[in-house]
Amino acid sequence: MNVMTAMTRKDEFPGLAGGWHYLDTAATAQKPRGVIDATVRAMGADYATVHRGVYARSAQMTLGYEAARRRVAAFVGGREEELVFTRGATEAINLVAYSYPRKGRVLLSVLEHHSNIVPWQLAGWQVDVCPLTPDGRIDLDAAEAMLTPEHTMVAFAHVSNVLGSVLDAKRAAELAHAVGAKLLLDGCQAVPRMPVDVAALDCDFYAFSAHKLYGPTGIGALWSKHLDAMPPWQGGGSMIDRVTFAETTYAAPPQRFEAGTPAIIEAIGFAAACDYVSGIGLEAIHAHEADLVRHLRDALRPMNDVTLFGPDESAGIVSFSVDEIHPHDLGTILDEENVAIRAGHHCAQPLMEHLGVPATARASFGLYSDHTDIDALIRGIERARRIFS
Amino acid sequence: MNVMTAMTRKDEFPGLAGGWHYLDTAATAQKPRGVIDATVRAMGADYATVHRGVYARSAQMTLGYEAARRRVAAFVGGREEELVFTRGATEAINLVAYSYPRKGRVLLSVLEHHSNIVPWQLAGWQVDVCPLTPDGRIDLDAAEAMLTPEHTMVAFAHVSNVLGSVLDAKRAAELAHAVGAKLLLDGCQAVPRMPVDVAALDCDFYAFSAHKLYGPTGIGALWSKHLDAMPPWQGGGSMIDRVTFAETTYAAPPQRFEAGTPAIIEAIGFAAACDYVSGIGLEAIHAHEADLVRHLRDALRPMNDVTLFGPDESAGIVSFSVDEIHPHDLGTILDEENVAIRAGHHCAQPLMEHLGVPATARASFGLYSDHTDIDALIRGIERARRIFS
Repeated sequence: MNVMTAMTRKDEFPGLAGGWHYLDTAATAQKPRGVIDATVRAMGADYATVHRGVYARSAQMTLGYEAARRRVAAFVGGREEELVFTRGATEAINLVAYSYPRKGRVLLSVLEHHSNIVPWQLAGWQVDVCPLTPDGRIDLDAAEAMLTPEHTMVAFAHVSNVLGSVLDAKRAAELAHAVGAKLLLDGCQAVPRMPVDVAALDCDFYAFSAHKLYGPTGIGALWSKHLDAMPPWQGGGSMIDRVTFAETTYAAPPQRFEAGTPAIIEAIGFAAACDYVSGIGLEAIHAHEADLVRHLRDALRPMNDVTLFGPDESAGIVSFSVDEIHPHDLGTILDEENVAIRAGHHCAQPLMEHLGVPATARASFGLYSDHTDIDALIRGIERARRIFS
Repeated sequence: MNVMTAMTRKDEFPGLAGGWHYLDTAATAQKPRGVIDATVRAMGADYATVHRGVYARSAQMTLGYEAARRRVAAFVGGREEELVFTRGATEAINLVAYSYPRKGRVLLSVLEHHSNIVPWQLAGWQVDVCPLTPDGRIDLDAAEAMLTPEHTMVAFAHVSNVLGSVLDAKRAAELAHAVGAKLLLDGCQAVPRMPVDVAALDCDFYAFSAHKLYGPTGIGALWSKHLDAMPPWQGGGSMIDRVTFAETTYAAPPQRFEAGTPAIIEAIGFAAACDYVSGIGLEAIHAHEADLVRHLRDALRPMNDVTLFGPDESAGIVSFSVDEIHPHDLGTILDEENVAIRAGHHCAQPLMEHLGVPATARASFGLYSDHTDIDALIRGIERARRIFS
């Protein structure tokens, strides 16, 4: 969008002061002042516990917390009773892996983040692995051939955290449902980068975190329309109906899955982040980041010593490598140029093995990124090349 | 301490502005300005991810996060490699209930918070229940008689969240160890109210939350010297050594138990809260709250229609009831007087059953509480009595 590319929003982000070229938003996003201010209010003048106090401030905070749930649910097209606040997207996936009652075979893909691999292994699922297309997307034709009635779950990244490749989630849902399986989407990299509507996608579980969406750390969310069918996992206060030592009965969802004092302050900040992003508009953000991806890939493609990974049409994330320069060395040299990228396995070791590299360099954009960041990155790559040649 | 009783610290807490008589600190503590400021810096100028970035800001934040771990561990007399950051005390207890490998019989007590009952039930432990002394303390003579070599765990509240009664934790550890069991202490109400040294107590697991210790929501801690013996529970990024679809190996503790991007901002705030409380001194805070408890109990004891629960020597928490006035009604009337207490079962339904009441009124103190709060509470009780008589 012209509005987005023409203007910079960097001034709204205290973390970007000093002309920092921050290209690690896929790891975690910087926070706008509005989210920080909402946090300060929630920690200070508005602070009280929720769901329990008989005094007005606590009743107010309870309204605020439940309004946050409604806003975060609505952000992905869901209803408040379908949304559980978790510690993060990782806990959201662990919750499903441990609590979903039809535990059996799960189909993952080669490009999954460890957070969408290890929980299934630890919780005792039998794991099958869908291959990728040559350009680094989950190969849904292969998935169709692999799926059997034994599969009770398909769990795919909506957007790859390494390649930026976008899943055809609607088709994945059709394939899963055709064999009686459910579809879980790891939406961490999707929600900050494109409009998400769980109803339109027809998925069953959607996991995402706040801190990658310009919100606080320490909180994420699981959306699902199947919470009713799931027994509790973690026990504690607020998730019970009646506790006796002989037998305990449990609250209805979503409370059933929120044991203990919730992340009250973080929920308020999470909702503020959703409101901030919605205010700009995810269509606009998506177009803005698509422009940046094109610009960066166009700059890197002619370089003979650069390998570009993933599809050209990626959502805000570009992984690459430069011959004879280890990604970590590149990252260190870029840091001297005030440019922050990520170098490593990106918590996706099976994908690194598939790509035949120990690590990649990754530049990832946010709504505050602009062409000056890319220009600084390119200058830094050129300097690294001079140093290493 | 004279210094504490003579001065008020209310000005340091934005949540207490407007002369609010906040007597619900056992539910959650208000946050001092220093903790809020630390949060703002961590969310803004200092913000970056940890453990992964190759750029300086991320390395800085990693140092800050690990320093926070060291400070929070030291706060209870432990070492950094013994401290896991969790979502809260509730998750800390769930982690032990699910992950401790010698799952068997656990001895709890009648006064436990639901967070120290339900996890054991959900994780499949056989639960035995230690009775209380007539004045509301865990009866360790009874515990001694009940414990058998079949018990692998004893899990007690260090300080009762309803009665304020303080456990003789050292003796509890001796009794547990005598039969080969481990001792877990729920320290939520202890750490804000008295000096805690896990080495001196000789306990095995210590669970506590930040938000009751004047710190952020969304984070707590598990200290243990047995982390090495425990397999991972939640899977995800950062807790692995090597991930393949065939076999995954795990990092050493404490990382093994911290799947996903940690609650970075909250950890910084947690450590700031520990520093704040240590700066005042827990001996001083304990003496200050003991004075307030005496003052309140002395004021309530002569009232013929008031029942006082728990021992006289309680740590900052006083539960009571007033004949013919339901605790919720009392709480509502007090709210009109700008006094906040808690009314209800306090997430301790078995204790309510033991006391023979559906609910109690509870006044709980913090380091910012003073005699004006108690005077306002007493005036409010007198007004409630006039309304209901």
